[in-house]
Amino acid sequence: MVDRWIIIAKERAGRPSDFIKAQKNEAKEDSVCPFCPGNENLTPPEVFAHRQPNTQPNQPGWQIRVVPNRFPALIIESPLKRQGEGIYDHMSGTGAHEVIIETPDHSTQLADLAETQIFEVVKTYKERALDLTKDLRFKYILIFKNHGQTAGASLRHTHSQLIAMPVVPKLVKEELDGSQRYFDFRQRCIFCDILKQELEDGRRFIAQNQDFISLAPFAPRFPFETWIIARQHFASFNSLNDDEIKSLAQILRITLQKMNRALNNPDYNYIVHTAPSDDPEPVFYHFHLELMPKLTQIAGFEVGSGFYINPTPPEAAAKYLREI
Amino acid sequence: MVDRWIIIAKERAGRPSDFIKAQKNEAKEDSVCPFCPGNENLTPPEVFAHRQPNTQPNQPGWQIRVVPNRFPALIIESPLKRQGEGIYDHMSGTGAHEVIIETPDHSTQLADLAETQIFEVVKTYKERALDLTKDLRFKYILIFKNHGQTAGASLRHTHSQLIAMPVVPKLVKEELDGSQRYFDFRQRCIFCDILKQELEDGRRFIAQNQDFISLAPFAPRFPFETWIIARQHFASFNSLNDDEIKSLAQILRITLQKMNRALNNPDYNYIVHTAPSDDPEPVFYHFHLELMPKLTQIAGFEVGSGFYINPTPPEAAAKYLREI
Repeated sequence: MVDRWIIIAKERAGRPSDFIKAQKNEAKEDSVCPFCPGNENLTPPEVFAHRQPNTQPNQPGWQIRVVPNRFPALIIESPLKRQGEGIYDHMSGTGAHEVIIETPDHSTQLADLAETQIFEVVKTYKERALDLTKDLRFKYILIFKNHGQTAGASLRHTHSQLIAMPVVPKLVKEELDGSQRYFDFRQRCIFCDILKQELEDGRRFIAQNQDFISLAPFAPRFPFETWIIARQHFASFNSLNDDEIKSLAQILRITLQKMNRALNNPDYNYIVHTAPSDDPEPVFYHFHLELMPKLTQIAGFEVGSGFYINPTPPEAAAKYLREI
Repeated sequence: MVDRWIIIAKERAGRPSDFIKAQKNEAKEDSVCPFCPGNENLTPPEVFAHRQPNTQPNQPGWQIRVVPNRFPALIIESPLKRQGEGIYDHMSGTGAHEVIIETPDHSTQLADLAETQIFEVVKTYKERALDLTKDLRFKYILIFKNHGQTAGASLRHTHSQLIAMPVVPKLVKEELDGSQRYFDFRQRCIFCDILKQELEDGRRFIAQNQDFISLAPFAPRFPFETWIIARQHFASFNSLNDDEIKSLAQILRITLQKMNRALNNPDYNYIVHTAPSDDPEPVFYHFHLELMPKLTQIAGFEVGSGFYINPTPPEAAAKYLREI
């Protein structure tokens, strides 16, 4: 009715007692970490890794490791099936869900890794995205990170996630459609216009390097929401070259470190905003990354309206982050 | 660009230190409760109350009390102003934001109030909605409840909220548009069709009385999401008569008590789904209430895609709630 997709992932949990336990025992942490070296047998077999020479897959010796999610939201199945149930539609859960383990070190968070290691993390995103883009059933590769329990991370060992989906997600489609309407009207990219206005204005500027600008968007949904936008106009994350990946790793690290200092290591989410797999360079779209510290709760107003109440003007947030 | 409205409510907070404090000191609770009798001077003056005879406004002696939110998301201002800032739009925050204090009793939650008291709460929603509907600047009256800190309630004393808005919110508009498309295609109301199918099927049925059905929707965004749908076809909450309000209070109480027993008193949100103020009875829409216990975190996937991952099939959730 509202083009809403709900993914029922029965493998993940389900009984009331699971939720009660989750509430009561919030720090179940650190019994045995499946992402630590030596515990490779606790994850499904790896699909990718950076390894020292002469080490075996699914053994220690890796610097970055990618494994299928043990509780996948979507599972690769074939073919894509749709069927009705009265007035409803079912669809089989075709997809891929991978976890990128960013370091063998259990207790260092992404922002505190060396810049060269963050480069390898971002480069791994690209390797996996390029590989999954070859599967023509996948229309969109969503890359994101949940850091900390309140941001949805169920394990503390730092990791990112990638979900390859058989449809372009609703919010991505809305952003693509909105950008296209702007382009049709002005014959210009809205993100290029945002960059130009923000660099002239300066009040929402946070940081920059040769390839990227970090800024507080004019209408942030969340306090201290930050966007990292490519200076050059291109739409696809997959088209970043190694120099640009290095720049992205650098500005991501700087931005996260500023956020950690300003807000005392908040939990956060970030999401790579890239083009769909089957239309990777639409002229109206522009690659960027959206980063949101988890400082407030989504409540009835947001769930009911789709609007957001934000107590922090973006100019104030940017000033703190810029000057710290 | 994506018809996103962000409400920057500077009155509410803003400095990084506010968020740090909020994280560290989660149980600031219960120093002095502004919603308790005797503390009426800690809220703005009341706009409505059920009072014992011979008691004064803003003094003890009330059973239900409605006050403007001290940190309103939207403030009544006039006239509605729109202005540009380069490529962006500003709009002044015209609106009303009220808090319905559901009982003088600080420590009893809504589900544990007497049915007659819940009747008065729901009737108060209607009184306030009817009153605010007279102000033609307001296009939508959003009524919702946040229960518990993880559901966004900043105070423990049980209360609901009402926000009168100068536009129809994005998600309400999507639901209206979706319902209209279904009606245009079938010449039937989608909610009437849902009720018919669910009563025949039975697997997602939870509870019922003479005017309402409580059920798990076919595609729940959240585990144990529950909808309370009117048996009769009408669109506007404001058209409920006293008997129907009594029925709604009864099924709301039963449903909340089932949820409390199954899930050990979870935090939750509910939202009244009613028609816009200036078109109160569109033939394609149908009054209902959506109730969501807060059991999982919204994470990068949901924020990035607009889709939801739900570990609990609705048939399993309904079975637990039905049988408890």
